[in-house]
Amino acid sequence: MLSRFFVNAESAYAHCDLYCGVYDPAQARIEALSCKKTLEKYHASEDIHFRQRCVIVKEQRAEDVKHHLMVLWADFFAPAHFETFPELHELFWKAVHQAGEVKKTVDHETVDQLLSYIEDISKIFWQTQKGRDMGVYPPD
Amino acid sequence: MLSRFFVNAESAYAHCDLYCGVYDPAQARIEALSCKKTLEKYHASEDIHFRQRCVIVKEQRAEDVKHHLMVLWADFFAPAHFETFPELHELFWKAVHQAGEVKKTVDHETVDQLLSYIEDISKIFWQTQKGRDMGVYPPD
Amino acid sequence: MLSRFFVNAESAYAHCDLYCGVYDPAQARIEALSCKKTLEKYHASEDIHFRQRCVIVKEQRAEDVKHHLMVLWADFFAPAHFETFPELHELFWKAVHQAGEVKKTVDHETVDQLLSYIEDISKIFWQTQKGRDMGVYPPD
Amino acid sequence: MLSRFFVNAESAYAHCDLYCGVYDPAQARIEALSCKKTLEKYHASEDIHFRQRCVIVKEQRAEDVKHHLMVLWADFFAPAHFETFPELHELFWKAVHQAGEVKKTVDHETVDQLLSYIEDISKIFWQTQKGRDMGVYPPD
Amino acid sequence: MLSRFFVNAESAYAHCDLYCGVYDPAQARIEALSCKKTLEKYHASEDIHFRQRCVIVKEQRAEDVKHHLMVLWADFFAPAHFETFPELHELFWKAVHQAGEVKKTVDHETVDQLLSYIEDISKIFWQTQKGRDMGVYPPD
Amino acid sequence: MLSRFFVNAESAYAHCDLYCGVYDPAQARIEALSCKKTLEKYHASEDIHFRQRCVIVKEQRAEDVKHHLMVLWADFFAPAHFETFPELHELFWKAVHQAGEVKKTVDHETVDQLLSYIEDISKIFWQTQKGRDMGVYPPD
Repeated sequence: MLSRFFVNAESAYAHCDLYCGVYDPAQARIEALSCKKTLEKYHASEDIHFRQRCVIVKEQRAEDVKHHLMVLWADFFAPAHFETFPELHELFWKAVHQAGEVKKTVDHETVDQLLSYIEDISKIFWQTQKGRDMGVYPPD
Repeated sequence: MLSRFFVNAESAYAHCDLYCGVYDPAQARIEALSCKKTLEKYHASEDIHFRQRCVIVKEQRAEDVKHHLMVLWADFFAPAHFETFPELHELFWKAVHQAGEVKKTVDHETVDQLLSYIEDISKIFWQTQKGRDMGVYPPD
Repeated sequence: MLSRFFVNAESAYAHCDLYCGVYDPAQARIEALSCKKTLEKYHASEDIHFRQRCVIVKEQRAEDVKHHLMVLWADFFAPAHFETFPELHELFWKAVHQAGEVKKTVDHETVDQLLSYIEDISKIFWQTQKGRDMGVYPPD
Repeated sequence: MLSRFFVNAESAYAHCDLYCGVYDPAQARIEALSCKKTLEKYHASEDIHFRQRCVIVKEQRAEDVKHHLMVLWADFFAPAHFETFPELHELFWKAVHQAGEVKKTVDHETVDQLLSYIEDISKIFWQTQKGRDMGVYPPD
Repeated sequence: MLSRFFVNAESAYAHCDLYCGVYDPAQARIEALSCKKTLEKYHASEDIHFRQRCVIVKEQRAEDVKHHLMVLWADFFAPAHFETFPELHELFWKAVHQAGEVKKTVDHETVDQLLSYIEDISKIFWQTQKGRDMGVYPPD
Repeated sequence: MLSRFFVNAESAYAHCDLYCGVYDPAQARIEALSCKKTLEKYHASEDIHFRQRCVIVKEQRAEDVKHHLMVLWADFFAPAHFETFPELHELFWKAVHQAGEVKKTVDHETVDQLLSYIEDISKIFWQTQKGRDMGVYPPD
């Protein structure tokens, strides 16, 4: 699998004339999935100390989701993408806002909706040439 | 001046049924202005140690701008605002993206453009009822 | 309003031979006001998850208050100011300590007292020439 | 792809009696790959401001690598794993130490070696039942 | 006492050809002791707001313990040390893992065990020549 | 040595009716000493990449010094201490301000002066009953 990284690294280098680093919706997805599991454990426990820890961890993980999404939106996606995918701004707003909702609630639906928005963003990401050049975990 | 805070605090409380905290474009503006001054000092100095510190500080301040803008966009503004101000998503994208540009450059125009975007956001913020209820530094 | 920034930026540049950035008591004030509103919402809710989030947010915002005050005290104010305003050291101690008290309590008086200390610091800040040169939000 | 997440989430829940969150070597790998690309850009540029930014970014990304590796090592892997894979402690030490080396150098080999160590950890991770239950990005 | 610092600083400088900074198990120990006292106060109080703050503080302090231990393990100790002290990898794993356990529990024994592991690491640290050169607080 | 911790922990518990945690000037001192060594290495090297890293590390360590000093000043010391040691406010201001100076310079004298201020604070700390109850590393 590593060899695929190195190939990508070389080709991305050629395509990216800005400072780009590495972009991948995987980062937001992992943190959102962590929110999901934290919530499951929250509901499966009666212990007050454990539940308080869940709230703390959920707060941090949801903030990480927001950060990773903001980076994708502002640094990876460019005006040409917003023309091709006119719903993209609103989709990102919904996703970042939803991460805030995940902080506020313990409902499973809220975090499932967040994962769904991230999935939508991920699909668009991988449809772009830039995404295929710069991403690390392409969908199978 | 303090009394004005307390009035705002009470009225905001009544209007805001979400968890809102306090929102004000002043936070993004102060950090962006800090980027601007840092850049001025960068150009006014020949000292390599000082200039390296300017780059470090600019990196941090521009990141703070991005964070404060993201909070405003995702937590303060709501779907109704995006209908009234259809350019708002793109304006926020430009502003957050521009903060990234400020990291990348030492050009004065780049940070002036960032301040201008923040000014545009600020004007919209203060036109909303929610902004007038929840903001701390209304324009005079 | 933006033009006022730029004028300040230029003049501050001339007056400030240290590395100063931008200083404004507005930053501490916004975070303290956020503590105040968080506390109001805490008392208005019976929901245990919501209340836990309030405690987490209050902890963070109060820490931000401490940080912003420390920067003002140590980096903005200089020995000449402490001669002109001999109570200034104690006032800052009271304010930073009070932010710690805000962490410890859910009493409204505690955060009102913090806001009052910040207001006192703010008045002194704007009385100084340096404050008028370097601040962003002068009192009206 | 999302459906696979949810399956994993459910099964992991059953297997994990500790507080586990979500673990995946993908997080360390993405940050290390970001170090690699940063270094490529560093060498491709003569611009001193750009190069300083590369050093700052590399410092942060390498620190993130260290953090993600520490979490995997201390929270995911358990005594039974260290018996099955007796080289695991040393492998983690090498990887975390190597992330420190990446901070210190601009040599390509150093970051390639880091990626190689992370790849070795990743292979072991996916050989474990716990890894298959709790990971997000299984190898293809 | 200060003079002892300066002597150390000079001699460490001579022995350390890598970038080393200053290493001392004291940092991990202070944070772990803070966890211990936080836990004592937790049990001595019935106040729900206070107890929530204890959980937040404990979470942060235990994370600091993990960070300080990781730095010691990966940056201070070198292959030669692991040969001389073959149990060192496992001891560090136990200590970092135990800091995670301290997050999860309110049992006194858990944090006492963490302090005991740190004490064991500390003893090994001070037995090394490098530790005597680079540490700040040698045992009396 | 550990037994001394536990004795302290118990006695501090009895004396401290606020939330106190653990206080010790050792934390500020270690970070300041790290600034000192970083500066020594800075001057001993001609390598531009290494020197940039030194500036980044010095910026972070000096910020940590400021933070640890602020905690000591605002949370540990109380009005009664400021009466007994009337120079204490100014001494803390000098120390925190000096940590900012350490950021700005590469002069050895600046960081030696910082260490000297921290030593003065340390002496006062250990003269107080509260310091003897709550500190971890008493002077020998």
